[in-house]
Amino acid sequence: MTQHAAPHPLDPIFYPRGVAVVGASRDSSSARGPGGWIASLTDAGQPNIYPVNPKATEIDGLPCYARLTDIPGPVDHVISAIPAQYVLPMLEVAAKSGVRSIHLFTAGFAETGMSDRLELQEQLRSRAAELGIRLIGPNCMGLYVPDGRVSFAQELPTDSGPVAFFSQSGTNANDAAYNGAVRGLRFSKVVSFGNAIDVSASELIDYAAADPQTELIGAYIEGMQDARQFFRSLRHAAAEKPVAILKGGLLPSGSRATQSHTASLAGSGQIWSAAARQTNAVLVHNMQEMVDLLVGWRFRAVPAGPRIGLVVGGGGISVQGADDVEREGLELPALSEDTLRRLGDVTPLAGTGIRNPVDTMSLWDGRSLKPTLDAVAEDPSVDAIIMQVGMNWGVNRYDLDQIEARRGMIEQIASARERHGIALSVVVPIQLDHSSGRMNAEMAGMMSEAGLPVYYSIRDAARAMRRLLTWSDKRAERAAT
Amino acid sequence: MTQHAAPHPLDPIFYPRGVAVVGASRDSSSARGPGGWIASLTDAGQPNIYPVNPKATEIDGLPCYARLTDIPGPVDHVISAIPAQYVLPMLEVAAKSGVRSIHLFTAGFAETGMSDRLELQEQLRSRAAELGIRLIGPNCMGLYVPDGRVSFAQELPTDSGPVAFFSQSGTNANDAAYNGAVRGLRFSKVVSFGNAIDVSASELIDYAAADPQTELIGAYIEGMQDARQFFRSLRHAAAEKPVAILKGGLLPSGSRATQSHTASLAGSGQIWSAAARQTNAVLVHNMQEMVDLLVGWRFRAVPAGPRIGLVVGGGGISVQGADDVEREGLELPALSEDTLRRLGDVTPLAGTGIRNPVDTMSLWDGRSLKPTLDAVAEDPSVDAIIMQVGMNWGVNRYDLDQIEARRGMIEQIASARERHGIALSVVVPIQLDHSSGRMNAEMAGMMSEAGLPVYYSIRDAARAMRRLLTWSDKRAERAAT
Repeated sequence: MTQHAAPHPLDPIFYPRGVAVVGASRDSSSARGPGGWIASLTDAGQPNIYPVNPKATEIDGLPCYARLTDIPGPVDHVISAIPAQYVLPMLEVAAKSGVRSIHLFTAGFAETGMSDRLELQEQLRSRAAELGIRLIGPNCMGLYVPDGRVSFAQELPTDSGPVAFFSQSGTNANDAAYNGAVRGLRFSKVVSFGNAIDVSASELIDYAAADPQTELIGAYIEGMQDARQFFRSLRHAAAEKPVAILKGGLLPSGSRATQSHTASLAGSGQIWSAAARQTNAVLVHNMQEMVDLLVGWRFRAVPAGPRIGLVVGGGGISVQGADDVEREGLELPALSEDTLRRLGDVTPLAGTGIRNPVDTMSLWDGRSLKPTLDAVAEDPSVDAIIMQVGMNWGVNRYDLDQIEARRGMIEQIASARERHGIALSVVVPIQLDHSSGRMNAEMAGMMSEAGLPVYYSIRDAARAMRRLLTWSDKRAERAAT
Repeated sequence: MTQHAAPHPLDPIFYPRGVAVVGASRDSSSARGPGGWIASLTDAGQPNIYPVNPKATEIDGLPCYARLTDIPGPVDHVISAIPAQYVLPMLEVAAKSGVRSIHLFTAGFAETGMSDRLELQEQLRSRAAELGIRLIGPNCMGLYVPDGRVSFAQELPTDSGPVAFFSQSGTNANDAAYNGAVRGLRFSKVVSFGNAIDVSASELIDYAAADPQTELIGAYIEGMQDARQFFRSLRHAAAEKPVAILKGGLLPSGSRATQSHTASLAGSGQIWSAAARQTNAVLVHNMQEMVDLLVGWRFRAVPAGPRIGLVVGGGGISVQGADDVEREGLELPALSEDTLRRLGDVTPLAGTGIRNPVDTMSLWDGRSLKPTLDAVAEDPSVDAIIMQVGMNWGVNRYDLDQIEARRGMIEQIASARERHGIALSVVVPIQLDHSSGRMNAEMAGMMSEAGLPVYYSIRDAARAMRRLLTWSDKRAERAAT
C-alpha cells in the first residue's frame, strides 16, 4: 500500500481546521435531518464550527457571524447553503478569508437544464480555479470523514474504518454510510460530490487508491467529464484494492434522470461492463448489492471456491435457499459419508435434513452448534458456508433472554470461522414484523459487531459470494501472469 | 363466486368446536414461540383448549387431561405433538372420542428417508382413512384460521380477511402470515400441510376456489402425489380467483432438499412454467415476491398498462429507480408539456427533476403533494404510479411529530388514488438503520392500514406490477375468447 509522502491536495478538505456554514438555517425545526449542518458537524465532534448568517447572532448555541471575514479562527472548509446566485460573490470573500475548499450543498446549476444556470456553473468553476479554491459539488451532500470530524448527517459512527465511498448522489452516500454502519462497516472518507465540476470521481478514486487508511473502495457514478481519465484511475485503484462500482442511468429513463440529477451523460452499459472486466472492478446493480459486497470483502466472505455448505433451521428455508444458491451460480455439493454420520450424531431425526442444505435445530442448541459447524467446515467438498440464523417467525415476543442466548451462538460461529479459516456468511432475515423483526435487527447488529458478514437473505449472501469469488479468481489469474 | 351449499368436508377442521393438544409441553419456557400450541390457541381466542399430558394436571392455567377420552366437551380437532411412534395408538383413542381431524405437528416420517418411517406413515394414512379421521401433515405447523379461532403462532391478527395461503413449509406459512399481516393482509385460512399424506394441495385449492370468504390464493408447493389432479384444481381455481404459486425445489439441490423436508418429488421447472402459462396462475421465486403479489391484488396495484409515473424524493433514488422500473419490463413515458408545466409550478428548481422520474420535494410538503400527484395521474401517458415515500436517510432521530406529519401525506396519497382511479404502489425502504428504519416501519404500517400497497423497494414494486399486468392482460384475453 502506498503511503502519502506529503499531504495530498485533498487532505485539507478532509481534515479542515475549521468549518463555516454559510447560510446556516435559523429555523431550529430544520436543524436536524438532511441539511442540518450544524447538528451534523456537532455530532461528528467538529470543534470549530462557524455558522454564517447576517440575520442571526447565535445558532444552535454557537456564535453566528455576519460574514466569513468576521470569523476569528482559521476556516479551511465552507459548506455553502445559500442560493446559487449568491455563490460567486461568496467565493471572493472566501478567498480573502483563506478558505481552501467549498462544498456546494447549493443546487440549481447545470442539472436544471437551463442555459443561464449552466453558464453560472462555468463561471464558478473558472473563478474558483483562479482563486485556488477547491469545489465539491454543486448539488451534493459533501463529506462524512470521521477522523476529520466532518459529517453530512447525524447519528453516524464517529469512529473511522477502512471503507471509502464516493457518490454523485447524496441519497446513496447516506445509504452507504447508514446501512453500511449497521452492518459493521466503518469509513475513511465518504464523499457526495454531485455535479463534480471540480473534485471528480477520478481524483477521489486516485486518492483512495493511495490513502493508507482506505482498504476498500465503493463508488456510485452517474457520468464523468473525462471517461479516459476515469478508467485509468479505476484500473490503477482496482489493481491495488477491491473496488465496487454502481453505475446509475444505464437504461434510457435512468439516463434521462442523470441529466436532471447531476447533469451527467450516462454512457452505455456495454462500455461499463467492458471496463469492469478489464479492471477487475466489480459492477453491482443497486445500493444493497454495493453494501453486500463491501461487507463481504471487509468481513472475509470471499469463498475459496463455488461449493457452499448451507446451514439453516427450517424446511421451507432449506428448499428455497438451495434454489437460491444455485440460481446465483454456486453449488451445493453432496456431503461425505463421514460428514453425514457426524451430523446425524447431533441432529434429531424429526423435522430436519442433513444432506446439504443442512436443516438443523442445532442452530438453537448450544451443544450441537459447534459439532455441526465443524462437520460442515471439515467436509472436503465445502469451500464456504452460508448459514441462516435469524428467526423469521415463531419468536413472537421481544425477549431479552433470547437475545442473550444468541450471544453464545454468535461466539460459536465466529470461533468456528477462525478455527477452520473458512469463508462464512450469516443470513439474518430483515422484515417489518414487529417482535421478531426487532430481534433480528438486534441480532444482526450483534453479528456485525462480532465481525461477521451479515446478509438479509440467502440469495443476497449467495450473490455476493459469487461476485467475490469471480473477483478473487480474476485477481489470482492476473497475479499469475 | 360459488357459495358452499352445505358444509365442506374440511369445514370441521377449520372451525372446530374444541381443540386438544396431545403432548402439550409442561415446560413453560417453550410455551411461547413455535410449538407453543396452548399460547397460540389462547392468542387466537379459542374458547375450548384441552391440553393432554398424563404427567400434568394443569398447563398454562388450563386443566390438563391424561387421555383424550377424559375431555368433557366435544373435540373436533387434535394437535399431535407426540413422537411419531405414539401416533397410531393415539389415532384409535381419537376415533373413540369423536375427533374429526388430527394435525400432525409430529415429524419423523417419510421425510427421514428411512423405510420403517415411510411404512409407519403409510399405516397412519390407511388407518385414519378407515376411521374417517382427516390428517393434516405430518411434519407441519397446521392451521391459522382467525374465524375458526385456531392459530399456529402468536401475535397474529385475530381478524380475518380474503387471503388463503397453503404451504408445505411451516416457515413459509408463518412468513406469509406475519409479513402479510404487517403489510395489511388478513387471512381466511392459512394451512401448513407438510408431507400431505391426506389433506392435499389440490383439496385445499379446491376449497379456496369455492370458499366465499377467500378472494385471493397463494400456495407454496414442494411436490404432490397426483400432479394431474393438482393442475386440474389449479386451472379451476385460477379461472375463479387470482392465484400465486411458489414452487420449491426447482433446481437440483433444492429438489434434494424437498425430499428431506416433505418427502416430495419436485418436478421440473419447465412443467411448472407451462402449467402457470396454461392456468394463469402466477409463479413467483420467493416468499417476498409472494407477499408482494398478494398485496398488489388486495390493494389494487394492478396497472392499466406498462407506463409508470415514478415519483420520488432524491436524485440517486430517481436514477436508480428509473433503471429498476425498466429492468423489470415496464416503461417510464416522457410526460406531456402540460404536465411538466403543472409540475414546474409546484416544484422548486434546485435539487429536483420533473421529467419522469419526478424527483420532487413535494413529498414532504402538504401543499404541493396534491397538485404533484394530480398532474402525474392525469398525464395521458401514465397508466400507474409508483412513489417512494420512505426516508432512507436523513431523518435521524425517531420523531413522533414527523410520524404525525406523515398521516396527512398518507391521506393525500389515498385520496389521489381514489380521485383518479389509478393503480398506485408505495415504496417504503426497509432497513436495519435504527431511527429512520423504525420510522419507515411505522410509516409502512400506517400506509398498509390506509389500504395502500406497500413495497420495500422500487424494484419490488415494479416487478409486482409487471406480473400483475401480465396476469390481467391474460385474464382479459381469456374473457374475450
